[in-house]
Amino acid sequence: MRATLIHGPGDIRVSEVPDPKLRDATDAIVRVVRSCICGSDLWPYQSAEKSDVGSRIGHEFLGVVEEVGSGVETTKKGDLVVAPFVWADNTCDFCRQGLQTSCRHGGGWGSDETDGGQGEYVRVPFADGTLVGLPGEPDDKLLASLLTLSDVFPTGHHAAVSAGVSKGDTVAVVGDGAVGLSAVLAATRLGAERVILLGRHTDRTDLGREFGATDVVAERGDEAIEKVRELTGGDGVHAALECVGYEQAVHTAIGVTRDGGTVGRVGVSQYESVPLDAGTFMRNIKMAGGVAPARNYIEDLLPDVLEGKIQPGKVFDRTIGMDEIPDGYRAMMDREALKVLIAP
Amino acid sequence: MRATLIHGPGDIRVSEVPDPKLRDATDAIVRVVRSCICGSDLWPYQSAEKSDVGSRIGHEFLGVVEEVGSGVETTKKGDLVVAPFVWADNTCDFCRQGLQTSCRHGGGWGSDETDGGQGEYVRVPFADGTLVGLPGEPDDKLLASLLTLSDVFPTGHHAAVSAGVSKGDTVAVVGDGAVGLSAVLAATRLGAERVILLGRHTDRTDLGREFGATDVVAERGDEAIEKVRELTGGDGVHAALECVGYEQAVHTAIGVTRDGGTVGRVGVSQYESVPLDAGTFMRNIKMAGGVAPARNYIEDLLPDVLEGKIQPGKVFDRTIGMDEIPDGYRAMMDREALKVLIAP
Repeated sequence: MRATLIHGPGDIRVSEVPDPKLRDATDAIVRVVRSCICGSDLWPYQSAEKSDVGSRIGHEFLGVVEEVGSGVETTKKGDLVVAPFVWADNTCDFCRQGLQTSCRHGGGWGSDETDGGQGEYVRVPFADGTLVGLPGEPDDKLLASLLTLSDVFPTGHHAAVSAGVSKGDTVAVVGDGAVGLSAVLAATRLGAERVILLGRHTDRTDLGREFGATDVVAERGDEAIEKVRELTGGDGVHAALECVGYEQAVHTAIGVTRDGGTVGRVGVSQYESVPLDAGTFMRNIKMAGGVAPARNYIEDLLPDVLEGKIQPGKVFDRTIGMDEIPDGYRAMMDREALKVLIAP
Repeated sequence: MRATLIHGPGDIRVSEVPDPKLRDATDAIVRVVRSCICGSDLWPYQSAEKSDVGSRIGHEFLGVVEEVGSGVETTKKGDLVVAPFVWADNTCDFCRQGLQTSCRHGGGWGSDETDGGQGEYVRVPFADGTLVGLPGEPDDKLLASLLTLSDVFPTGHHAAVSAGVSKGDTVAVVGDGAVGLSAVLAATRLGAERVILLGRHTDRTDLGREFGATDVVAERGDEAIEKVRELTGGDGVHAALECVGYEQAVHTAIGVTRDGGTVGRVGVSQYESVPLDAGTFMRNIKMAGGVAPARNYIEDLLPDVLEGKIQPGKVFDRTIGMDEIPDGYRAMMDREALKVLIAP
């Protein structure tokens, strides 16, 4: 089969690799119908070590079950399924508390001899625990939104849930990437009354407004903090959703948060520490979030997607085939594309 | 009247100052019956700027209402009352959400022409909002525990509440000072099944055991983290209560916290940032807490104190008169005393 490998900075190749085979009784083989490129794929795209062998990449996919192991009980051949961006047994104590990213037996796609998501097939460990079945044969349009359940939309949702967003809240979202826009949609869905999106790319913030942003702040850093405080009568927001991953973004998120409020961080952290100083101590600022346990949220978010109440798939602004994957990475890196959908 | 002033590092004096007078209609004058020295008083004790005039100090007191302003409705002359360590109107939106430390009209004792707590009398702004009435004439023994409601016990309680301690949890408390020991008591009271106290002063950890600590870890830093992980099957604790205020203690607290768990910080922060790095991001470690809104907790904690179910006053291991206050500071600084009670 063909799969995507990363061989070093900027060096993405689509190559022939061995077809996956069932290894453990709880495995399934899934034929990928839709996959995509994640903002977090751009970190190795910038920093991966050079390698002739290369490493599999991609962790978001939706597909059809082709084969199941003898220990697989609920997942059936022919099922349309979405996979969260980590696999998990969904039975251990961490999974049961909704933290499948800390599953005692889980792991990441492309590691531990699984496949990456940006290929034709994937061997899925703990198929019954990992995969979520999707009903019937949804039309092509719906597939994009269903695919977002793999990572980007639950990640935005995790920011909002971690920050305790609830009805009537004022929320700030730091970052207008696909995760930031997903966080806007998630906060709006959870009943936020006012959602202030911090971003400066008009095409993206326009989608943010469509997703529910009531205000857009183009300023950055301390100017952004000042602007958000101005918009909130000086107080700041109940919840700030940090969707970038740089310390500057965390600083901004903390700065716009109202006393007693929470920063929900989901931007993959590129920092060693966060500025929770004496001032934030006096203000009782909380910090929550981290890598999103997407598996925990999929069933909750699915009905709204199936009913068309929300269309998180709008974050995809380009669809490509497998041959174009290297250019898809380039386009996302150059901010030419917001998020790239792959139809293998 | 006589009151305590700080004139520079190590320079505490008890001096004659003007008797307080009602200033605003909502004021009361309270005669101090019990006061005490706080671990946080030791920060200015080490770093205050030299000053001939000096600054009032002390923020924990319990006393009898001597006089009330014309706008005071519920507080009466003769009432025995406890004062939280900040004053607040208890009616603004922050107060209503239980964050009286961020009251829109509040302030700290000894500032804004109020008096410090370590004196004979205190002018109390927003008497109805600030003060909590105590029933009848409790005996001397109970006064010590009632006084802890002013700061130290609600501060330990805030650590536990912020970290979400609930029935059956495993909890670590970093620090065996009066706040740490109060946090042990608070976590136990909230139903923690196992409370691991990190401290190395046997006389203090012995009181910790009396307050409910099931394990004591004398190691520090990475060794302490390793030890707590050993004690918890490698997983760490649901909640880590940081009761010191140094970055090292925060590092330890984060290190012992189980994936998805929370650090409740109440040690007055002597740091600019906390090590919430990529590892903690993958582990979904939360951080909450800050300066404790004692006022929000007093009514909740009071019954257990009055009924003798808990005796937080055991943190006091020395009682002094006003003349001995300078030596009381020295004794706490030298770790000769855990916490010093003042009977003016």
